[in-house]
Amino acid sequence: MMKELHVQTSTHPYTIHIDEKIRFRLKDYLVETYSSIFIITDDTIAPLYLQGVMDNLQHESIHYDIIPSGEASKNIETYYRLQTKLMEAQLDRKSLIIALGGGVIGDIAGFVAATFMRGIDYVQVPTTILSHDSSVGGKVAINHELGKNMIGCFYPPKAVIYDITTLHTLPAHEVRSGYAELIKEAYIYDEAFLQELFTCNLQNINNLPLIDHLYQGIAIKANIVEQDEKESNIRMFLNFGHTLAHAIEASLGYGKITHGEAVAIGMLFALYISEKKYQTPLQLQTYYDWLKRNGYQTTLPAIPIDQIIQLMKLDKKAQFGTIQMVLLEKIGKPLIVPMTENEIADYLRSFKEEWNIS
Amino acid sequence: MMKELHVQTSTHPYTIHIDEKIRFRLKDYLVETYSSIFIITDDTIAPLYLQGVMDNLQHESIHYDIIPSGEASKNIETYYRLQTKLMEAQLDRKSLIIALGGGVIGDIAGFVAATFMRGIDYVQVPTTILSHDSSVGGKVAINHELGKNMIGCFYPPKAVIYDITTLHTLPAHEVRSGYAELIKEAYIYDEAFLQELFTCNLQNINNLPLIDHLYQGIAIKANIVEQDEKESNIRMFLNFGHTLAHAIEASLGYGKITHGEAVAIGMLFALYISEKKYQTPLQLQTYYDWLKRNGYQTTLPAIPIDQIIQLMKLDKKAQFGTIQMVLLEKIGKPLIVPMTENEIADYLRSFKEEWNIS
Repeated sequence: MMKELHVQTSTHPYTIHIDEKIRFRLKDYLVETYSSIFIITDDTIAPLYLQGVMDNLQHESIHYDIIPSGEASKNIETYYRLQTKLMEAQLDRKSLIIALGGGVIGDIAGFVAATFMRGIDYVQVPTTILSHDSSVGGKVAINHELGKNMIGCFYPPKAVIYDITTLHTLPAHEVRSGYAELIKEAYIYDEAFLQELFTCNLQNINNLPLIDHLYQGIAIKANIVEQDEKESNIRMFLNFGHTLAHAIEASLGYGKITHGEAVAIGMLFALYISEKKYQTPLQLQTYYDWLKRNGYQTTLPAIPIDQIIQLMKLDKKAQFGTIQMVLLEKIGKPLIVPMTENEIADYLRSFKEEWNIS
Repeated sequence: MMKELHVQTSTHPYTIHIDEKIRFRLKDYLVETYSSIFIITDDTIAPLYLQGVMDNLQHESIHYDIIPSGEASKNIETYYRLQTKLMEAQLDRKSLIIALGGGVIGDIAGFVAATFMRGIDYVQVPTTILSHDSSVGGKVAINHELGKNMIGCFYPPKAVIYDITTLHTLPAHEVRSGYAELIKEAYIYDEAFLQELFTCNLQNINNLPLIDHLYQGIAIKANIVEQDEKESNIRMFLNFGHTLAHAIEASLGYGKITHGEAVAIGMLFALYISEKKYQTPLQLQTYYDWLKRNGYQTTLPAIPIDQIIQLMKLDKKAQFGTIQMVLLEKIGKPLIVPMTENEIADYLRSFKEEWNIS
C-alpha cells in the first residue's frame, strides 16, 4: 500500500514515498544521474541496512561514512570530518548524498549537502518514526554547545524514501518519540487523527496503520510548511510542546531523553496552560492516560525553575526577550502567545503541583 | 554622484549603493528594525572604520568581533568562534550582521549569517575594489584545507553599502587585484568598458571613474547572475581566468598572491588558448602591456605542470573528471569548453615558452 506525498518548497518540489521494503528499490526513486553517491549513516543503522542499500544502487562510484549514533554526533567536528571525506572521495557538484538513518543523520547529512561546494543534492532514507517530522520542511542543522540546532539552514531533500519495514527494529523509546510528534501534529491540526492515535497501542502497530499515521503526520506538516516556508508565522505552530522540550533536553544533556518524549512533557505543560488560560477542554486527562499506558515519562525532570526559564529564553524563536509559547484555543486551533518569564514560572510551579503525579 | 543598482535574487531583491563617505549614512540604508547588530570586521579595517560605523548606527544593542585580516581567517575555527560570539551576545532571528571589510570578511560573515539559527539578515560594507565582485551573487563560504571556498552556500545580503572613500587607503596590490576582476567582467561582456579600462592608470584613479568602474563591473555581474542564480550555465562565464588562478593560489598557499593578480595570470592563459583555438584577436598583447605597466606579475609561478593540472581538477566546476575552461570566441563572447588534462598540459607548456617573458 504505497503512499506518496508531493511537497512544494521555495526552490523545488519533491516526493515522499512511503512503503514496505522500499529501500531495495531506492534506485528507482532517484530522479537524476549522479557522478558519485556518498551514503552517510550511523553505527546502529549500518549493520542493518547499509549493505542492502549499496547492493541496490549498484553505482560505480559509491562511498559511505559511518558516524556514532546519537545526538552527540551532530557537532562541528563530525560535520567538518564529513566534508573532508567528501573531498577525499572527489565528489563534485553532480554528486548525491544519501542520509540513511534517523533525525540526527538527516540533519547533519542535510547540512553537509547544503554547504558542500555551496550545495549538492541529497535524499533522505529515514529509519525512525520521528524523522517523518524532519522529512518535510528542509531544516538541516548541527548543534552548538550553547544550543541545539543553532547552526544550520533551510535545504530540502530531492526525495524522501521511507521504508517502514525498517521501523520494526526500533526500541520502544524511539517509537514513543516518533508518536509524540504525531500526537503534536494531530493536536494542532486534526481532531479526528488525534482520536485515532489515542486508541493506538504503541507496543503493537501493524504496517498498515503505521503507513497511514506517517502519511497523515507528514501531510499535516507539509501543509503547514508550504504555507510558510520561512517559519515567521504559522510554521511556529509546529513548536507546540517544543519550547519546554528544548529546555528539558538541554538541561539533561542531549540524548538523555528522546526528543519526542521531551515534547510529550512539553505538550502536557502547553495543554495545561491552554486549558487554564482559555477555559477550554483539550483532553488533557485522556492524553495523560495515553502517555502513561504507553510508558512515557510524564513528570518534569528535577531542574530548578529559573534554569528552565533561562533555557527557554535561549530558544531560537525567542524575540526581544519574551518567550513565544504555542498554545491551543481548541484542538486544531493553535496560536502563538508571547509570555513573560514570571508568567511561565508561575505556570511551571502550579503545573508541578497539580500534575507531577508520577 | 551616488549610484544605485538593484539586484534580483531567487529569495529577495536588494540594492547596492555606491557613493563617497556613505559609511557615515549607513543607518539610512537599513530597511528593517533589528533587535541587535553585530559587526564582523578585521584588524586592518577596524582601526580605520569601525568607530565611524558604530557611531552612525547608534543602536542600543551593538556588538562586534575583529578577526585577523587575510584569507587564513576564512577557516572553520574562526567560523565556529563567531557563532559562539553571536550566541553569547544573545543575537536572535531579528538581528543583523554587518560585514565590514573585503572579500574575506564578506564571505565568512555572510556564511555565519546564512547558518546562524538557519539564517539571519546581513549587509555588506565592502572596503576593497575586489569585493565589488562578491557584492553580487550571494556566494558565501569558508575554505577547507583541501580547497578554497569548498564549504558555503548561496545567501544574498539585504543591502550593499559601498563607500568608495575607503578604497583610497588600499595598498597597490589590492587595487591591482580588484581591477583584474573588472578587466574580467569587461572581457566577457563589454568591449567598450575593456577599452576604457586599458586607458586607466591604477596608480592614480579619481573618485568619479572609480565609482563608474565599480558600477559597470557590478552591473555586468548582476546581469549574469540574475540570468543564472545557480551557476549551472552562463554564470560559469564569470570563471574566466579562474580555473588556473585557483590552482596558482592553492599551490602557493592562499594569501601569497592576491586573488585578482592570480586571475590576471589565469586570463592571460585563457586568452592565449582562445586565440590559438579560435584564431581570433583578443588584444592579448594590449592586455599584457597593461598588466606590465600597472605592476602585475605576468609569469606563471614555478609550479610543476602536473601539480597545476591536479589542482585545476579539484576546481568546484570540474565535472566527471574533465576541466571546464572558460574561453573567448571574441571579446564579449565567452563559452565553456571541457578540456582534457593532456590538452591543458600542452597549452601550459607552450604558454610558458611563448609568454613567460618576465
